[in-house]
Amino acid sequence: MLMKASSQSLTEQLAARFAERIRNRLLAPGARLPSVRQCAEQNGVSPSTVVAAYDQLLAQGLVEARKNRGFFVRELSGARSEDNGGAPADDKGAAAWTAAHWIVARRQPGPVNATSLIRGMFHKISDKPQPGMGVFPSDWLESTFMPAAVRKVTNSRALNECSLQYGEPLGDGGLRRALAGKLGGLHVPAAPDQIITSVGATHALDIVSRTLLRPGDPVMVEEPGWAVEFARLNALGMRLLPVPRRADGPDLEVMAQYCALHKPKLYVSVSVFHNPTSYCLSPGSAHRILQLANQHDFHIVEDDTYSHIAPAHATRLAALDGLRRTIYVGGFAKILAPNWRIGFMAAPPDLVEQLLDTKLLATLTTPSLMEKALALCIEQGQLRRHCERIRTRLDVARSRSVKLAMHAGCKFAAEPAGLFGWVDTGVDTDALAQRMLDEGYLLAPGALFHAERKPSTLMRINFATTQDAAFWKKYAELVKRM
Amino acid sequence: MLMKASSQSLTEQLAARFAERIRNRLLAPGARLPSVRQCAEQNGVSPSTVVAAYDQLLAQGLVEARKNRGFFVRELSGARSEDNGGAPADDKGAAAWTAAHWIVARRQPGPVNATSLIRGMFHKISDKPQPGMGVFPSDWLESTFMPAAVRKVTNSRALNECSLQYGEPLGDGGLRRALAGKLGGLHVPAAPDQIITSVGATHALDIVSRTLLRPGDPVMVEEPGWAVEFARLNALGMRLLPVPRRADGPDLEVMAQYCALHKPKLYVSVSVFHNPTSYCLSPGSAHRILQLANQHDFHIVEDDTYSHIAPAHATRLAALDGLRRTIYVGGFAKILAPNWRIGFMAAPPDLVEQLLDTKLLATLTTPSLMEKALALCIEQGQLRRHCERIRTRLDVARSRSVKLAMHAGCKFAAEPAGLFGWVDTGVDTDALAQRMLDEGYLLAPGALFHAERKPSTLMRINFATTQDAAFWKKYAELVKRM
Repeated sequence: MLMKASSQSLTEQLAARFAERIRNRLLAPGARLPSVRQCAEQNGVSPSTVVAAYDQLLAQGLVEARKNRGFFVRELSGARSEDNGGAPADDKGAAAWTAAHWIVARRQPGPVNATSLIRGMFHKISDKPQPGMGVFPSDWLESTFMPAAVRKVTNSRALNECSLQYGEPLGDGGLRRALAGKLGGLHVPAAPDQIITSVGATHALDIVSRTLLRPGDPVMVEEPGWAVEFARLNALGMRLLPVPRRADGPDLEVMAQYCALHKPKLYVSVSVFHNPTSYCLSPGSAHRILQLANQHDFHIVEDDTYSHIAPAHATRLAALDGLRRTIYVGGFAKILAPNWRIGFMAAPPDLVEQLLDTKLLATLTTPSLMEKALALCIEQGQLRRHCERIRTRLDVARSRSVKLAMHAGCKFAAEPAGLFGWVDTGVDTDALAQRMLDEGYLLAPGALFHAERKPSTLMRINFATTQDAAFWKKYAELVKRM
Repeated sequence: MLMKASSQSLTEQLAARFAERIRNRLLAPGARLPSVRQCAEQNGVSPSTVVAAYDQLLAQGLVEARKNRGFFVRELSGARSEDNGGAPADDKGAAAWTAAHWIVARRQPGPVNATSLIRGMFHKISDKPQPGMGVFPSDWLESTFMPAAVRKVTNSRALNECSLQYGEPLGDGGLRRALAGKLGGLHVPAAPDQIITSVGATHALDIVSRTLLRPGDPVMVEEPGWAVEFARLNALGMRLLPVPRRADGPDLEVMAQYCALHKPKLYVSVSVFHNPTSYCLSPGSAHRILQLANQHDFHIVEDDTYSHIAPAHATRLAALDGLRRTIYVGGFAKILAPNWRIGFMAAPPDLVEQLLDTKLLATLTTPSLMEKALALCIEQGQLRRHCERIRTRLDVARSRSVKLAMHAGCKFAAEPAGLFGWVDTGVDTDALAQRMLDEGYLLAPGALFHAERKPSTLMRINFATTQDAAFWKKYAELVKRM
């Protein structure tokens, strides 16, 4: 909110707010600022205040005016467009790589892009619960067992020993054994030496892509799907083949066509509590996907980030496949300690060495101190009980959020489940997201979850952070005015 | 040593030894086993024992016999050669990428390749001090201040807070401030927000390459140089332009020619205590390199891994350049705690955002707990005093090692300094390395430090681990028999 009593003038406050958003990429390069009239109305100031604020932004080089079209956000860094924009036209791989490299900044000209969503994980937008976020609020994750486990590994005599060596290339042996046991419970048959730890699930997905793919390779991804995955594959120069995700799994007709036409190398899937729909894969779909994979010889990477809040009996490709073509990826940022950055992959035996080479070239080993603490949390059953508590709490939160959302006029595009709701607002969520930002809320508009960033009336909500009636009241108000 | 009294027959012991080396890639795919006569002689067994052992390896599929040429190590995994070997010939970028991908396994058919040297950092070859290793022995790194710092950050109330958030994208703010202070002491002018932390210096080098380069780009590297850097750049599909490294810096004539012919995008350099020669860059060379960089518009990444054992007044490109074209990379694995995996880069302001994007897409954030502990160690002056102690100890070790080495008939190809000696043995060090392995010593043969792996009579020794007279005795014995 702009404040009249502030030491800054209204013009300065308005200009500073836009400048900050541009720098944090909450307003991406190429995005259009609201019209002077709209902006004046939204902020309760006179049009001349807005004109003066836009002039300041122009003077700061943050926006440019285009004749009869309004004000647009400029590229932040000259180097970005000059140094890397000129790939030779005949070199498709490199051109794709270059273009892709800037996807986050360039191809997503909407108001809230993938980078801003990632950065929203770190920058505090406001003190309000954030409906667009992909994680649990940190107070949900508080526990006494986690610090106790850390104290145990850091007080032990083993601290020196574990710090002063590089550690096992695959990752801490104790953790890999604990993970193998945990995966056994999900019917994923992984021996400890098929498991490689990583700096969060993100790093595992990165290692898999770098190992199995080369620039220009076609990769099947789910749509809607997670924008950061699209951005990562694009940055590596891959060709994305978006497969529509249905309630029971990917559209198998489309997959089969892609297989026939493009010979994809990889299929990237979130089987259980898919992001953003929270759909779960059916056993029949899983079986047919694996048949396609065998027939057309592609690998699968199954991102099971949400496994901690899912039932053990949920269908996982890695379980049906027995880790023959499927690389299973998991992590603990969502459920235990985001900053510990512990993820892992469980891989077919014949891929382990290659994946390990990529890990070694990219980061050498991973820090084993936190891996040892995590192993303790798993072995002692504390993580399991922690997950049960979170699940119960999430069930209550979901019921309340669903009621509030429906009361505010949302329609659920997918049956509410898991952490995320996929809701239809009836209005353009890119525009809505920009207005909600003014109120201190970061939304996750539907366009973010599309490989080509199509405008959408859908948005993803986090059930843990949308129990606040004040949010829904503001939401309903703004939707009504659009 | 093979033992007659063992429960295993000599044949079994010999076969098991080769099998283990093949699996650990101490014998790389394509490497030739010693002739039956040689092997019998080296191991003090009859030729028929060797024939029987080689037969076992054949039966296990680990080696293949080639008519009249002997026995050769096979590819370990079928997938390696089949799945990714067939890049289309007209797609140079992709082909280079693929070829490069297997460089570690394929292009380095000598007995000790880059991977085995990396893996030697983790696998214990024997209990003996390892002359080929690139790090200090872990007992040199023992301290009381390091565990104390860890206990401080883990006992504090901040543990929950720092674990349950993703943390700052750039890395822990306290550490970045401490690093900025430290860099100021080296005349490298870096503000905290120009510093990005990483999972060791390796990760920083990887992030820089992925951000500034695209497949097929020409990159100048120093030769001799660090094999893992060559392997990483190759794996990313880059074209390596090796610049001979002289005592005062790179061969500037060659650099100028590369600039004119190939328009390189990047120059990767270890200015201070260069690996493997321990050469230090002269101020005059530094100035001329930066002139070339300005004239031909390339970036420089300066890997200052050995800064902790170097004087503060040593010439660094980042200091002369003021972080305009130079990205400075540092790390703490060598001096403090290898397993903490903390490295960082200090970058020109206009590159920070791009580098940060790559970090976020690859691993999101880095673990801040150890970053906070490291910040304490720096702020309280303990790291500085620790480095002084190590330097003093290294000076003593170097004197002793140099004497022993010269007495054993080595000639120093570079003035002894820093951690590494670059010595001429007069014999082929690939063959020597294989024989020394039989004695429990992992050497770093000269071929490892060449982009094209030319056979060499040079080898790199670690002054901290070559004070053992027993090693030099065995060395002199074997060299004499070659």
